[in-house]
Amino acid sequence: MTLLHTIYLIAIAAEAASGALMGMRRRMDLFGLCVVGTVTALGGGTVRDMILGHYPLGWVAHPEYLAFTVGAAIVAALLARRMHQLKTAFLWMDALGLVAFTVIGCDIAAGTGAKPVVVILMGMTTGVFGGLLRDVLCNQVPLVLRRDLYATVSLVAGMLYVGLLYAGVGEGAATATAIGTGFALRLLAIRFALALPVLEADISSFDDGLGEHR
Amino acid sequence: MTLLHTIYLIAIAAEAASGALMGMRRRMDLFGLCVVGTVTALGGGTVRDMILGHYPLGWVAHPEYLAFTVGAAIVAALLARRMHQLKTAFLWMDALGLVAFTVIGCDIAAGTGAKPVVVILMGMTTGVFGGLLRDVLCNQVPLVLRRDLYATVSLVAGMLYVGLLYAGVGEGAATATAIGTGFALRLLAIRFALALPVLEADISSFDDGLGEHR
Amino acid sequence: MTLLHTIYLIAIAAEAASGALMGMRRRMDLFGLCVVGTVTALGGGTVRDMILGHYPLGWVAHPEYLAFTVGAAIVAALLARRMHQLKTAFLWMDALGLVAFTVIGCDIAAGTGAKPVVVILMGMTTGVFGGLLRDVLCNQVPLVLRRDLYATVSLVAGMLYVGLLYAGVGEGAATATAIGTGFALRLLAIRFALALPVLEADISSFDDGLGEHR
Repeated sequence: MTLLHTIYLIAIAAEAASGALMGMRRRMDLFGLCVVGTVTALGGGTVRDMILGHYPLGWVAHPEYLAFTVGAAIVAALLARRMHQLKTAFLWMDALGLVAFTVIGCDIAAGTGAKPVVVILMGMTTGVFGGLLRDVLCNQVPLVLRRDLYATVSLVAGMLYVGLLYAGVGEGAATATAIGTGFALRLLAIRFALALPVLEADISSFDDGLGEHR
Repeated sequence: MTLLHTIYLIAIAAEAASGALMGMRRRMDLFGLCVVGTVTALGGGTVRDMILGHYPLGWVAHPEYLAFTVGAAIVAALLARRMHQLKTAFLWMDALGLVAFTVIGCDIAAGTGAKPVVVILMGMTTGVFGGLLRDVLCNQVPLVLRRDLYATVSLVAGMLYVGLLYAGVGEGAATATAIGTGFALRLLAIRFALALPVLEADISSFDDGLGEHR
Repeated sequence: MTLLHTIYLIAIAAEAASGALMGMRRRMDLFGLCVVGTVTALGGGTVRDMILGHYPLGWVAHPEYLAFTVGAAIVAALLARRMHQLKTAFLWMDALGLVAFTVIGCDIAAGTGAKPVVVILMGMTTGVFGGLLRDVLCNQVPLVLRRDLYATVSLVAGMLYVGLLYAGVGEGAATATAIGTGFALRLLAIRFALALPVLEADISSFDDGLGEHR
């Protein structure tokens, strides 16, 4: 599926750029930017395949993806001063990547015979785990766990994709519907700052217990 | 073994709750709480199986465990204000879970033909690695590495279990002895604040060297 | 190859010591020091083998390595006050370990039929990923991503090793050349504080965007 593959390449470039920019904020050197960019772009698929025991990993079989992510990381670092001018384009590419990663991840998991719940979860893993690993390497609580309809968009796209396939819809139509719906939902979430609730509670007395006794 | 399975379910619920509460402290949203709870509950077994190449992973074959951990995370978040009233019950469940995870992990590792040292280590991995991953996601130095007889309890339970099996004791008796002894030891450790020594040393001059030259 | 194996043992001892010392700085207990030391020493090879699906892992088949790293971690912790006197010896052992890990990692990856780019990358992974995991467990941005010719030395050694084998040079000569060159380069990097560039840029406006909208 050529279009999906093209979207995938745009997506890993956008993710590699996001990793490189986060690394710059942490004053990483050129090597660090390339590592964080590559982990952000390919980490989700890598974790998915390691969970499923699905070998060889995509980038081990196709190391040209590595050249692509390293190149994107370096370009992003060089253009960093101008990236804020490209912010909208960047967020759109990232949104497209999120839903494309999700659908691709569902596809690969389904191919291993995993159950539907696991298929959807592996789609989400592909979509959000690269950014989560980026944040761990950059020593911050992962953004995806804290706010915004980001993982939720991946969940909706994955459920839609798996549901449509299950209902007998063709793969092309299911892919287009899931990506289109997810992309639109993500842009709405950005535009209107939609987010899941954060449960606030005074749990300090309990926390002390956890800290002291575990 | 129905009793051990029941204990296992109590254990993953307790671990999922501990993850969700830690996530609340980091102001994570609902998705984040569910992820951290699930990683805390199932992360130890996942790492064990990925180290051993033991596929499919438990929760991939039995995704109902995921529903269980997500449910426990949400319930814990909703009850967070009252959790300090439940602190004792919670610590007891966590202690039970630690030793049950250990015995289950030893069993699975032994089934892959691993050597006794590795079997015991995989029991400990199952017992403590979920909490370690929870702390990495929550951006803090893992509690289990810092204090308390926690990993040590897992080590003792694992050695006892493997030693008893090796000595020809039946699996049921070995399981009961290891879990009972480990549970009692953990409760004593909580009650009397038992801990391993922390070696204190002025290593600042060396640390500077490590920081500067690596 | 006995000499390479001896170098490997020196290397994992040096890495385990570096992990234990970093753990002391974080006031970890004895168990924590042993875990961080072992992860630092064996983590790179473990990640490499999990990426390649190369089972059983080295230390699962040879658990005596675990005894070795735990022993080295404890000795380093006991000698911590005097380690600054040993700083030069320590940095030399670490440098030797870096290049030995790289060559060994390349060898194992090549044995799985991986492509040359992946072989070199797996050499680097073996060389630097243990230290990276150490820093994640110690809750800091990995040093290897921030400064110094460290990963670059591993890259050069790996490229040289793979290039020489490809050119028909014998394995012994290729190993000696790659280790000798990498070791010398690393010592020069320490002596003259050589480092890759850190790209500085005012990317705060973009960062805010990333923080707010992802």
